[in-house]
Amino acid sequence: MHGLMMDSPLMISSLIEYAARNHSDTQIVSRRADGGLHRYDYGQCYQRTCQLAHVLRALGIEHGDRVGTLAWNGYRHLELYYAVSGIGAVCHTINPRLFSEQLVYIMNHAADRVLFVDLSFVPLLESVADELMSVRAYVLMCDEDDMPQTTLPAAYCYETLLCGSQMQFQWPVFDERDASSLCYTSGTTGAPKGVLYNHRSTVLHAYALCSANSALPLSCCETVMPVVPMFHVHAWGIPYAAVMAGSRIVFPGAQLDGASLHELIQAEAVTQSAGVPTIWFALLAYLAQSGARVDSLRNVVVGGAAAPLSLIEQFEQGHGVNVCHAWGMTEMSPVGTTGMLKPRFDALSEAQRFAIKLKQGRMIYGVDMKIVDDDGVEQACDGDAVGQLLVRGPWIASAYFDDALGTAHSFTDDGWFRTGDVATLDGDGHVQIVDRSKDLIKSGGEWISSIDLENAAVGHPHIAEAAAIAIADEKWGERPLLVVVLGDGYELTSQAMLGWLEDKVARWCLPDKVLFVDELPHTATGKISKTQLREQVRAMNLISR
Amino acid sequence: MHGLMMDSPLMISSLIEYAARNHSDTQIVSRRADGGLHRYDYGQCYQRTCQLAHVLRALGIEHGDRVGTLAWNGYRHLELYYAVSGIGAVCHTINPRLFSEQLVYIMNHAADRVLFVDLSFVPLLESVADELMSVRAYVLMCDEDDMPQTTLPAAYCYETLLCGSQMQFQWPVFDERDASSLCYTSGTTGAPKGVLYNHRSTVLHAYALCSANSALPLSCCETVMPVVPMFHVHAWGIPYAAVMAGSRIVFPGAQLDGASLHELIQAEAVTQSAGVPTIWFALLAYLAQSGARVDSLRNVVVGGAAAPLSLIEQFEQGHGVNVCHAWGMTEMSPVGTTGMLKPRFDALSEAQRFAIKLKQGRMIYGVDMKIVDDDGVEQACDGDAVGQLLVRGPWIASAYFDDALGTAHSFTDDGWFRTGDVATLDGDGHVQIVDRSKDLIKSGGEWISSIDLENAAVGHPHIAEAAAIAIADEKWGERPLLVVVLGDGYELTSQAMLGWLEDKVARWCLPDKVLFVDELPHTATGKISKTQLREQVRAMNLISR
Repeated sequence: MHGLMMDSPLMISSLIEYAARNHSDTQIVSRRADGGLHRYDYGQCYQRTCQLAHVLRALGIEHGDRVGTLAWNGYRHLELYYAVSGIGAVCHTINPRLFSEQLVYIMNHAADRVLFVDLSFVPLLESVADELMSVRAYVLMCDEDDMPQTTLPAAYCYETLLCGSQMQFQWPVFDERDASSLCYTSGTTGAPKGVLYNHRSTVLHAYALCSANSALPLSCCETVMPVVPMFHVHAWGIPYAAVMAGSRIVFPGAQLDGASLHELIQAEAVTQSAGVPTIWFALLAYLAQSGARVDSLRNVVVGGAAAPLSLIEQFEQGHGVNVCHAWGMTEMSPVGTTGMLKPRFDALSEAQRFAIKLKQGRMIYGVDMKIVDDDGVEQACDGDAVGQLLVRGPWIASAYFDDALGTAHSFTDDGWFRTGDVATLDGDGHVQIVDRSKDLIKSGGEWISSIDLENAAVGHPHIAEAAAIAIADEKWGERPLLVVVLGDGYELTSQAMLGWLEDKVARWCLPDKVLFVDELPHTATGKISKTQLREQVRAMNLISR
Repeated sequence: MHGLMMDSPLMISSLIEYAARNHSDTQIVSRRADGGLHRYDYGQCYQRTCQLAHVLRALGIEHGDRVGTLAWNGYRHLELYYAVSGIGAVCHTINPRLFSEQLVYIMNHAADRVLFVDLSFVPLLESVADELMSVRAYVLMCDEDDMPQTTLPAAYCYETLLCGSQMQFQWPVFDERDASSLCYTSGTTGAPKGVLYNHRSTVLHAYALCSANSALPLSCCETVMPVVPMFHVHAWGIPYAAVMAGSRIVFPGAQLDGASLHELIQAEAVTQSAGVPTIWFALLAYLAQSGARVDSLRNVVVGGAAAPLSLIEQFEQGHGVNVCHAWGMTEMSPVGTTGMLKPRFDALSEAQRFAIKLKQGRMIYGVDMKIVDDDGVEQACDGDAVGQLLVRGPWIASAYFDDALGTAHSFTDDGWFRTGDVATLDGDGHVQIVDRSKDLIKSGGEWISSIDLENAAVGHPHIAEAAAIAIADEKWGERPLLVVVLGDGYELTSQAMLGWLEDKVARWCLPDKVLFVDELPHTATGKISKTQLREQVRAMNLISR
């Protein structure tokens, strides 16, 4: 027997309609390419989103068609999020930092019909346009006056297209399970894989983010600055959650250096923000060097990579800013954990509380998690037992888009997604990521976490970056090799490094060797590429796994 | 094209599973019938909910069957919420304050299979048991030692049934649109009508309540005391939202007087609470008389009836407690508005802010609203235009349960529910209820709000309660009659009352006559019954409409 409730599908368009109606004068501030600020409100954003919807229809975009974006965080990108999904098409956000072969692969695999491009990425696109099989128009996200000379075929100006278009649009209502957006994993190994979100998953994920329990509790009293790019899994969902909550939004554009972020935080009274550790270290370095303050900032979410202790200490002790860990994946929309500390930890010392904050946060309602051993047997949630982390829920991927790569092994027969992470869970719901399963080092039958070694190493004040990988060992099977990059102007011996680690990791986890290098290889999303590093080390005849 | 997200239905059972796993040691405190406190945690609550699920199955309850509850706010009632809906049956919460004919009608109309009853309601049930056609078992919510002698046939003891039952249960997963609970409107006119909720509507409504934007932003840092009864539209959804958020819960049982509520607030450090104005006036009177404080209380939600200015003033000025208006209906699960003030009003004077707080709150995302004239034409959202309020959304009723009463006129052909309220909407999303459409007084072609008159009247320090109704008038069609109940020991003349009103309502809205009575008739939910009042007045030959 069905309940007698209205069968109202969860539609992304309803988010921007709600904000336009109830928060029409709330501002959206965007850093423009020229460094100046663009400023408008939800009312104007909605009118332009309606205009854009008409433009997309005029460009021949139909229900289910993919529309690509190559853009920084800004108001036009936000309009695209809502107009493309709103008409029933699929907003494919593309990471412009990918290698050009990956870009071509992704755009062809997605069969993007139209590409919307920030001016800074036009040269990149020009260099690969010949290889794009499905694109029939390029829209340059600029004013008419700024339109460059370009070799791109069928190039249009965004503002010219919008100009004169109608400011009302009747948003279609359709199945909430219809596809709404598409994002490819960066693919440290193999080809990038596409994750195809739908309206239902996007709205439910936004609800979770807006929760008072969330790492980023958004309301109409907050000004949120998403530093994490809108091409990284929807800036972690903030462009949906902030609109649902009627929050004031500050988009930082392409200028992500410490000075530029600080200027925005102070001038626009940003209260909450979210980004990767690298960004925050740059901001903290600027603050330390300039003596500047971040008076309005109360809460910072760290994701994408683990937040080192020093980051938490600098924000909380130095600036009174709360730091929340969040963890997730492209396949998870992306949020799976939140970081707000439970009140029962209030009585702990600061060091003890920071130790809990170093975990990846607590499970949020909506994402079910378990850890299993190699045979699929569930392990205890006691904070000690380690296992492969499996997740499921309404905003978790069930398959990859147009998957011809045989990635079915990523999903269990009984409906779980294999994250590829090895983790512990505890009774408070805390998740602690021990390692990527392929990065664990197996020594004498025991697992050594490469992450633990790296965190301990970068705690040294002279170390800029570190990576631990396995090298083959006759006696132990594998032993850890630590590869480090020194900070500018510093020197260090292997002995000094190992001495530093001695009281920080178990004796049998100590690396056999420390390798000093000038730089480490990185993926397009800024993570250390251990695949490439292993190749480089193998070429050095250190016999890495 | 569908997105490739997991097709995970929104199940009520997942809420309690989540809380048991992630907040197992968070307390649920309940006032027992003997005045003492029962105390356990989410872990124990979950085990007993599993036991209860087995008991329900053993009692023969099948998917879709209705199970009735006649109970105060307490831990066993919470277990019933989750066990009944969790196994796929329908939790029918019954208002024990209804007249016995209404109780019989409702239980027969719902075809309740089993009734779960607090001991205090056993005599009431015994008096009507003969007339109940579908009930095949009564479960008394008490320990074995407290089982009374009863004439109820097939009477079981709750704790005896649970004892020895298994503490694990495999919750079935089914269509999220399947019915989960049932609640009847109090029915000031005609027979009570049943609203049949489903799992989807319940979980989505809980998400909205947990939002940082909500009138009751719940998280694991809060201790919430739902004073509004669990038989009044699920205590406004708190038993679902608090579990989703992992909040500490304090259930006040049957003792809702000011002293008892104060004792709980202080002893259990309650931070947020929700209830009708009558409850809060009783608490405030106790605080004023005793000089007691409510140190932990930060936020109080007022609904069910409009909060008068004096209530807001006393809480905010006298005790530093924020007051939020919320508005909704049984047909709306029930929440349609939230009360958190937008930051742009921070600069206003206190009086100006309180004036905004007197409105019924802001529309929440998920409930779409419009006002229309008698021809269905949409009116402006300018805070001035008045119209019939229509609502729609995923937690709004689409029909009444087993409706043979021809109530189809409550729903428009294009999918809106007619609230029966007349309201204004403004650009900030504020809803102001002007009146129930049937209570408006039409005088010389102009509408007079009975609510405005009543609010102005009860502002007088000597007035305990007031109601305005229409009486027929040859010249004007209708004119307002004000019926008032004086506070204990006070006296007042008609002239003095009218003099008080003179600068508070428009001249043409002033009542022609003031009638002093000892008491006003009330409905089972504590609202003034204008239907009965009109009958009484008609019998006095004052010719009420």
